[in-house]
Amino acid sequence: MKQNEHIAKLSSGYLFPEIAKRRRAFASAHPDARIISLGIGNTTEPLTPHICTAMAQYAQALGTKSGYSGYGDDSAGVMELRDKIAQVLYNGAVSAGEVYISDGAKCDVGRIQQLFGSGVTAVVQDPAYPVYVDGSVMTGAAGGARVDGSGYEGVVYMPCTAENQFFPSDLSVIPENALIYFCSPNNPTGAVASKAQLAALVAAARAKKSVIIFDAAYAAYIRDPSLPRSIFEIDGARECAIEINSFSKPIGFTGVRLGWTVVPKELTYEDGSSVARSWERLTNTIFNGASNIAQQGGLASLSAEGQKETRALTDYYLANARRIREALSQSNFSAAGVEVYGGDNAPYVWVRFPGRKSWDIFDRLLCECHVVCTPGAGFGPAGESYIRFSAFGHQEDVAEACGRLARFSV
Amino acid sequence: MKQNEHIAKLSSGYLFPEIAKRRRAFASAHPDARIISLGIGNTTEPLTPHICTAMAQYAQALGTKSGYSGYGDDSAGVMELRDKIAQVLYNGAVSAGEVYISDGAKCDVGRIQQLFGSGVTAVVQDPAYPVYVDGSVMTGAAGGARVDGSGYEGVVYMPCTAENQFFPSDLSVIPENALIYFCSPNNPTGAVASKAQLAALVAAARAKKSVIIFDAAYAAYIRDPSLPRSIFEIDGARECAIEINSFSKPIGFTGVRLGWTVVPKELTYEDGSSVARSWERLTNTIFNGASNIAQQGGLASLSAEGQKETRALTDYYLANARRIREALSQSNFSAAGVEVYGGDNAPYVWVRFPGRKSWDIFDRLLCECHVVCTPGAGFGPAGESYIRFSAFGHQEDVAEACGRLARFSV
Repeated sequence: MKQNEHIAKLSSGYLFPEIAKRRRAFASAHPDARIISLGIGNTTEPLTPHICTAMAQYAQALGTKSGYSGYGDDSAGVMELRDKIAQVLYNGAVSAGEVYISDGAKCDVGRIQQLFGSGVTAVVQDPAYPVYVDGSVMTGAAGGARVDGSGYEGVVYMPCTAENQFFPSDLSVIPENALIYFCSPNNPTGAVASKAQLAALVAAARAKKSVIIFDAAYAAYIRDPSLPRSIFEIDGARECAIEINSFSKPIGFTGVRLGWTVVPKELTYEDGSSVARSWERLTNTIFNGASNIAQQGGLASLSAEGQKETRALTDYYLANARRIREALSQSNFSAAGVEVYGGDNAPYVWVRFPGRKSWDIFDRLLCECHVVCTPGAGFGPAGESYIRFSAFGHQEDVAEACGRLARFSV
Repeated sequence: MKQNEHIAKLSSGYLFPEIAKRRRAFASAHPDARIISLGIGNTTEPLTPHICTAMAQYAQALGTKSGYSGYGDDSAGVMELRDKIAQVLYNGAVSAGEVYISDGAKCDVGRIQQLFGSGVTAVVQDPAYPVYVDGSVMTGAAGGARVDGSGYEGVVYMPCTAENQFFPSDLSVIPENALIYFCSPNNPTGAVASKAQLAALVAAARAKKSVIIFDAAYAAYIRDPSLPRSIFEIDGARECAIEINSFSKPIGFTGVRLGWTVVPKELTYEDGSSVARSWERLTNTIFNGASNIAQQGGLASLSAEGQKETRALTDYYLANARRIREALSQSNFSAAGVEVYGGDNAPYVWVRFPGRKSWDIFDRLLCECHVVCTPGAGFGPAGESYIRFSAFGHQEDVAEACGRLARFSV
């Protein structure tokens, strides 16, 4: 059997297993080290009472004749949840029928990539969540890794760095027939795009008959009321955007698995046919819906009580982000020219170590502070010399990590 | 934006939503009709106590500091479950590290198709579960639908009908570099391949350097101890087969979502590189693991008590299958030449109406008996004139449906 040429093109491993491997190697060489992870964006705090009780009750009821349920009518999820998302999270700006429940944003990125296939050009912010590019390579929408480490052939990288306040300087690089992956609040930079910026993005996408894949997985962390939480707050977005989202980061469902994707009715291919209809055909064929138990948890989170709990949980992680920002703004860092970004309306703090290599800083922080972070270079060429700190962690661990960082000599 | 040419090639809708549509149309025109579904293979009986209690307790514990968990180390699932599957369901014939937990067999079929890409030839039993062919079309491994209704260009169909006891007469049609989808116990025919038949299949696959995708989702329904429950009971299969499986049908997890795939270490591409390593790279990129709550349910089903409950639940559906077989063997059917197959070691009864069209029989059964079945033609060209009856239903509904069938005039 021949190997699929596209899969063969992927360079090295997926970022986070690679980090886990280095961590394990260090841990086994230093069994006494108490390693603290501020690396992967993995939630650490217990589910809130309202949500886990709803799931426990539903699971128990699955053992009764009246409470049992099998497959849904299709893979799109229970209508009550779809409706509640449309009402509570979009104020009715999208309809229930446009909300497709999934087992998570990452999985839906993969399905969206399969939907559009190899004939599109992937346009990404650089740095970006690795799945946008890696998945594009797998479907044949991108070529092989360039030997100079500057990314993959055929992918359009739009650098988002401190120099341009983390928003692409030149949207004219977007070609026709592109899938534009745009994440706000951004992973990894923590930057949140303004309405004016998103309006420019929407205009650019429409001008080039391209589609925006808007990743709003961190929208629940936005505290500034002037910042948009959804691409559908922007006029014209319904004609050119798909939004992916997740319950993982707002309510700690990283392990429970639940997300959603909004495909607006106005989104069509150039022949006028409906993207949503293709999406339904694809998802009904290779997906079977999110776990019904998880869907009940999602539903519980959208009640008034659930929303209050969600706010408290995201506030907890934002307090961690503030503490990390402060630690990295101390004189041992600032004197070395270290710059700190993000963490205000996002659970990630993005830190520049001018002139340094990301993986070197990663290794030093692991060896000297026993703190795991994520090297910015893992998110794309423009991430080099940056480090991402995740605010997902127990408060006491974050405090301990910050104490160690205060003693770090850059 | 251009539509993906492969998605555009898919003819009409996925089978089961199409059936649901016809059912809804009939129901709205006849609001008093009590429709009984023996169509889609959707489980109907409550979860067993041991399993749903385990999930309820786990969900509640997610609300505690010690019981909470987020992402796993990778997407492959909790090691305790992988290990238990290897021990209990494979008697150690596969190792825990070869078992990859999923959110269901259908979803893993889609991911496997993406793994192998467009450069393979799809070989299917005909009739077959629609996802094998539809998914192959989507990845570009198959061409467009032939206008004469004989299937898709580029797919090799191996007819499995009463004439050849539902096993392909000629395995020499398998080309090199093929993905051979083989389902046993079979959906839709209910046939179970013998060890000798599977040995022939393995030999044919190895001779052509092709890979068998063995769908064992109904293995828990095998009662004849001489029949193999896994392709890995066959010598040489570890070099040429991937097995997909599911908790949906053994324990009623159609809505809870849990399955697994076995990728043996010996399976390599022609360049000697590991298929399992590619699989891990792909699943870590576009999948994030099955729900942790569902995984605890799967684990509970593999204890001694869980296995006893599983046996009782599958026995319940097999009793339905027997009753359906009997109803369709009565004189009103047999006098018209109707032949009944399957249902002994499988939850599907496969019925031939010689000289009739499947969709015509479907419509007549819906209109005259208010019974929903699945038209055989929906499973492939060789399914024409057959009808599938699913044994998944409440006993009393099945009894009522059988009473109505007894009055049906073929």
